[in-house]
Amino acid sequence: MKLKPIGIINSPYKKREDAPRQGRYSDEISEITVFDEYVEGLQDIEHKKHYYIFYWLDKADRDKLKEIPPGKTEEKGVFSIRSPVRPNPIAMCLVEIVKIEGNKLTVKWLDALDGSPLIDIKPFWAETDCI
Amino acid sequence: MKLKPIGIINSPYKKREDAPRQGRYSDEISEITVFDEYVEGLQDIEHKKHYYIFYWLDKADRDKLKEIPPGKTEEKGVFSIRSPVRPNPIAMCLVEIVKIEGNKLTVKWLDALDGSPLIDIKPFWAETDCI
Repeated sequence: MKLKPIGIINSPYKKREDAPRQGRYSDEISEITVFDEYVEGLQDIEHKKHYYIFYWLDKADRDKLKEIPPGKTEEKGVFSIRSPVRPNPIAMCLVEIVKIEGNKLTVKWLDALDGSPLIDIKPFWAETDCI
Repeated sequence: MKLKPIGIINSPYKKREDAPRQGRYSDEISEITVFDEYVEGLQDIEHKKHYYIFYWLDKADRDKLKEIPPGKTEEKGVFSIRSPVRPNPIAMCLVEIVKIEGNKLTVKWLDALDGSPLIDIKPFWAETDCI
């Protein structure tokens, strides 16, 4: 099970300390560049405004199974929290599209560090993705 | 970027034709078995009822960038639809936990084919995952 980087994320967050705990609470803008060989997959992307962005947490620890969440004092299992620390460090973040120009998507709410590899883009569907 | 299988999904869906278009609209039960070496990561999982399950679509075509959605006649870019066909065939599905016994989670709403490799489990957070 090998992932292919399909693009790259450029964001104002250079270090983990710079990133908001939740991108949703920030209006900072990030730019997603989809590599040329995957651009065809972007067809019709302009029909929706909200997407889940999947990216690779290339700096995350993959060997820890427990972590203390920010602001807490007790360890929790990584599958019960949203920590970047997990065996498969895939991040998922709901974003709002601000602008689309060719292979570049300008978005808000994204919490990725600058330079994170893009893995997937999926449209948000409230009826199945939410309670 | 190599994924580790962290468990396996057993479901009533043996072939793609058996699976519901959206697991959400079915009350069928699936069982997720987390492999022993990752069980520690399940600590505190009982505190919430809803999780996103990430699994690997091991039968999906990774080379197509356009696909005709079910019931439609026109091709769309794979990043604008939720087709299993995509460069990195990671599925994400919101589930409701029915029962937890050790390393086994019994869930509903999951749309995975029987035998699908489990990749990740993340708690659902309405405030950041939904509009």
